[in-house]
Amino acid sequence: MASLEKPIANGFRPPAVPDIDVHGFWGDRIDAVADKTVMILYERCVAAGMFDQIDPDRPVPEVRMPFHLRSDGSPDTVNVQMFWDSDVAKVIEAAAYALYRKPNPDLEEKMDAIIEMFGRLQLPDGYMNSWFIRMQPGKRWTNLRDCHELYCAGHLMEAAVAYFHATKKRALLDIMSRYANHIDRTFGPSPGQKPGYCGHEEIELALIRLGRTTGERRYFNLARYFVEQRGQQPHYFDVEAAERGADPKQFRHRTYEYNQSHLPVRQQNKVIGHAVRAMYLYSGMADVATEFGDDTLTDALKILWDDLTTKQMYVTGGIGPAASNEGFTDYYDLPNESAYAETCASVGLVMLASRMLGRGPDRVYADIMEQALYNGALSGLATDGATFFYDNPLESRGKHHRWTWHRCPCCPPNIARTVAAIGSYMYGVSADEAAIHLYGESTARLMIGTTPVTLTQNTNYPWDGRISIEVGLDAPASFKLALRIPGWCRTPSASVQGDWLDVTPIENKGYLRIERHWQGGETIVLDLPMEARFIHANPAVKADLGRAALARGPMIYCAEEVDNASGLNSLIVEDDAKDANAGRAEGLDGAVALDLKARRERWSDWTGKLYDTEKPTIEETNVRFVPYHLWDNRAPGEMLVWVRVQR
Amino acid sequence: MASLEKPIANGFRPPAVPDIDVHGFWGDRIDAVADKTVMILYERCVAAGMFDQIDPDRPVPEVRMPFHLRSDGSPDTVNVQMFWDSDVAKVIEAAAYALYRKPNPDLEEKMDAIIEMFGRLQLPDGYMNSWFIRMQPGKRWTNLRDCHELYCAGHLMEAAVAYFHATKKRALLDIMSRYANHIDRTFGPSPGQKPGYCGHEEIELALIRLGRTTGERRYFNLARYFVEQRGQQPHYFDVEAAERGADPKQFRHRTYEYNQSHLPVRQQNKVIGHAVRAMYLYSGMADVATEFGDDTLTDALKILWDDLTTKQMYVTGGIGPAASNEGFTDYYDLPNESAYAETCASVGLVMLASRMLGRGPDRVYADIMEQALYNGALSGLATDGATFFYDNPLESRGKHHRWTWHRCPCCPPNIARTVAAIGSYMYGVSADEAAIHLYGESTARLMIGTTPVTLTQNTNYPWDGRISIEVGLDAPASFKLALRIPGWCRTPSASVQGDWLDVTPIENKGYLRIERHWQGGETIVLDLPMEARFIHANPAVKADLGRAALARGPMIYCAEEVDNASGLNSLIVEDDAKDANAGRAEGLDGAVALDLKARRERWSDWTGKLYDTEKPTIEETNVRFVPYHLWDNRAPGEMLVWVRVQR
Repeated sequence: MASLEKPIANGFRPPAVPDIDVHGFWGDRIDAVADKTVMILYERCVAAGMFDQIDPDRPVPEVRMPFHLRSDGSPDTVNVQMFWDSDVAKVIEAAAYALYRKPNPDLEEKMDAIIEMFGRLQLPDGYMNSWFIRMQPGKRWTNLRDCHELYCAGHLMEAAVAYFHATKKRALLDIMSRYANHIDRTFGPSPGQKPGYCGHEEIELALIRLGRTTGERRYFNLARYFVEQRGQQPHYFDVEAAERGADPKQFRHRTYEYNQSHLPVRQQNKVIGHAVRAMYLYSGMADVATEFGDDTLTDALKILWDDLTTKQMYVTGGIGPAASNEGFTDYYDLPNESAYAETCASVGLVMLASRMLGRGPDRVYADIMEQALYNGALSGLATDGATFFYDNPLESRGKHHRWTWHRCPCCPPNIARTVAAIGSYMYGVSADEAAIHLYGESTARLMIGTTPVTLTQNTNYPWDGRISIEVGLDAPASFKLALRIPGWCRTPSASVQGDWLDVTPIENKGYLRIERHWQGGETIVLDLPMEARFIHANPAVKADLGRAALARGPMIYCAEEVDNASGLNSLIVEDDAKDANAGRAEGLDGAVALDLKARRERWSDWTGKLYDTEKPTIEETNVRFVPYHLWDNRAPGEMLVWVRVQR
Repeated sequence: MASLEKPIANGFRPPAVPDIDVHGFWGDRIDAVADKTVMILYERCVAAGMFDQIDPDRPVPEVRMPFHLRSDGSPDTVNVQMFWDSDVAKVIEAAAYALYRKPNPDLEEKMDAIIEMFGRLQLPDGYMNSWFIRMQPGKRWTNLRDCHELYCAGHLMEAAVAYFHATKKRALLDIMSRYANHIDRTFGPSPGQKPGYCGHEEIELALIRLGRTTGERRYFNLARYFVEQRGQQPHYFDVEAAERGADPKQFRHRTYEYNQSHLPVRQQNKVIGHAVRAMYLYSGMADVATEFGDDTLTDALKILWDDLTTKQMYVTGGIGPAASNEGFTDYYDLPNESAYAETCASVGLVMLASRMLGRGPDRVYADIMEQALYNGALSGLATDGATFFYDNPLESRGKHHRWTWHRCPCCPPNIARTVAAIGSYMYGVSADEAAIHLYGESTARLMIGTTPVTLTQNTNYPWDGRISIEVGLDAPASFKLALRIPGWCRTPSASVQGDWLDVTPIENKGYLRIERHWQGGETIVLDLPMEARFIHANPAVKADLGRAALARGPMIYCAEEVDNASGLNSLIVEDDAKDANAGRAEGLDGAVALDLKARRERWSDWTGKLYDTEKPTIEETNVRFVPYHLWDNRAPGEMLVWVRVQR
């Protein structure tokens, strides 16, 4: 067993969700999750029969969902029922945040009942997985590659931490600690232990979370072991397959790039494979880097981060263009209409970016966290909290709509828990500094070292860039505040108690670093003017040639048929957003819409013609743009992010 | 057996290849085929070992080419070796036309030797297929769906006709007549006959050709039987599969749409499946319609023609966008860079269009024949006749180049035989009329009814639109001439003996119909001004949005990196070709290049950036366009047909 190193002092860790009271833009979203989404999620779990599988006192249910079939008709290894524990876990996690926000005895009782089921399900040795206890007994730990066993454990650990923070109830935390201890005994380099790791990463970051909450540092070591062991030779998935009598080559996804186990993690320099898995792995790596101060891991992550964000990311922060592997393809292959860009993958990118901030404030990460959060991730949840996007294209001819549910129900609870936990993404706290990564009307109760600090943000962000931050203290104290200056803002300014700061000398990696002896009651005002701007794509991105995307603040905009009639691709805007007229979007309460002058191609009748020499006539028109994440919340129709631009 | 109906009198049939002496543009191409391509084709057949399989006096060779493998690794049914007879047949056909053009005793001796091999291979009952005689004896006629057996017979029939016309030697014609008789005994509705047809259409049109040459009308009836039988229930391919103990559902291409046997032919109204198969089927249908005057078939073909040319055809006349089925996908799905657009498919479209003219001159068909011929088909053959394109994209980032050969060697001999036979596509002759479908420097010796007529075209077409046609007669005679007015020509004019004709009243379906008592020696002058023009695509074609294709006369143009530097997608042209400057393209002897003013986007450095708010600067430049079919004949690089257009 690797020796336990002390967590480094200068790492930044997120506060617990209940430490931040969130209002304003995100407050409304959290309320929608608390009021509606969480109960929808619970009911869908009931309808799917998930609790029939989990509750050991009910009859063992039949296998409900068909196995994936190989092309010759023979069954393959993965069934969504195998990872139902993780879906239930994400529901518990989202419910925990909802309960913290709004007491709800009915919901709490339901969650307690599920936790009690898990308690009854858990075996005396600590093992707890409903599929392998009830559906495939005797097969535990025989197919880590395909069966999501440690992944399920990880999500339950995250749920346990969240439920403990929200309710102070320890039951699930204790269950998952026992299970984590079992996993710790089962996996490792010692004789009799399995040198394995999960085909779907998640356990790594979950063990860090569990360790931070319980103080059990061996969970950090186990997380590090899983990270270090990945991709080592002899390859665990080969060995494991041979042990269960299977041909290692008969892997449905053909290459271990699919689950990022093709190489040891420090040798990986291309973001590849299944997008959610990649994000969860890198998140775990970043957490391990933070806890162990491991620069070699951080350096590997920086290479992967650049690879992802400079060659493989949609402007919405969507990632993973292909449905075939739910993941990455070639550099600059970012088709808009067929974009997969799974909600969970953008959530994963938010998680990764947030964890990259563990090594200290850096706009490189926080800007992308904000971009993915407000666009590719948030688009996954309708404003009323009742319907969901699984894939998030940047263009639609009118046939792409929000689901009430999905065969693979990972995204709805994932975006729900992310929205409900938004407070923990807004801040990072080290021993002597608090960083504000995201702005929004809120009150944060933080502990900087041993100093309790209250930071109250008054703002209409993200619709307006003026943020007033009040520092509340029990007693005067010295500490640093790091305030992010978003990369999209050209003319930031800031004052403390009305004194304007000279921004440039105190900016470091895109954060204003304010160090002083605080008396308490100071007001910092940050002014981040939001001007509409057009974003262009690297010309290597074929899909965006001759097009531009409109943005304002952290929001990427799109045009919808409901505002602009059909034929959005006949619209051509001038490549200048300075005259954009900002106003309220009807039917999208509070959102800022942008109106721009444009030209529209009018063609004569194309009926029965494929080609013609006749030119279109051009008419002047206006185009209304609305924030991308809000699309398909009104009348259904076409949608377009990358609009044609006049040259 | 269906009763034999008389062929109709007013059908138009193509002249035999030796009846036309072709010079000018096409003459140079035919010379390249005769001087170079034909011997290359022959040598590639030798190198592939095709003659080891055909010659019954050599040891039976091993299977050379791997079978297609199913995803589970088990072998599927198709091996290219199965259809080697057809590749050899196309080589004989191309060689026949070359021999007619230029005596070549060495080549003729080689072809005679192959024909002699086929003679020795043929079984006493007339059957003759090298795969099923030598490689899989005993399996004949057991898998018409997959094994190309009648397809091979068809190509050999075409070769026999061509070789007979060119050399007057009957050996192969006699072999193939015996084989045709065997096939006629084997297939049909009578007890003991098989009610089958081929999975790869070709035999239908070949039987018509054989019947026209031999005068054997039962070949017409057999062609009609194959056409009528296709897609009838119970489905022959199901029955046949069951008879050989196979599961009919285990069909690699899953749906009988792949080979157009999903419905009886008159019920088909969507062009679907494998593109070459579709074109060959429709060609056979058109031939049967011509010989039997069958309007019901012609009506079905008109629907399919509209479907193809108004929803599924590239502007080059390329068809079949997808590699996966070598065929058709969804309407308006015409991606440029990934276009499959197989050379053979455009050749097939030329064949179909030519045969649609069997019911009389109609520009609807002749325009597309010319478009496909000069662009999507001719691009398949390098100017020197030595290298080939299999797939013909309309955009390349610089990695698509001509092959010296291909695993599936169908395209090189197919484009070679088409070019060498171009004379037969230029004319159509009925009992009282000759139609000129294509223009080009040439002399045609035609028989209109019983009147021998010589038509001599003097022209620099396709580079210039002025055509002088001299009518040569042994004695004065009355007949009609139909002269095509291409749809691309806005201001056609025509004169006979210097007297200008009023074009409008005598134009019918895009042809000038001139009926008079000819003295002989008359000169008709046709003036078809060629102006450069931009073509726009129906906005439903996503790939061409905001783009236009430059054309002049029958030629579609493209920009190449060699003339314009890299980054062709940074070029933006004005949507007006009237100022295009026509000149000679260097290194492409005789071809007309077009130069246009344009704008070029210049971006600042994109290294390490995926998105940016900075605009490009715009610089004025010139773009040189060259005929599409000539691309990749000079320095390799990018190519683009659909250029961005200013709005």
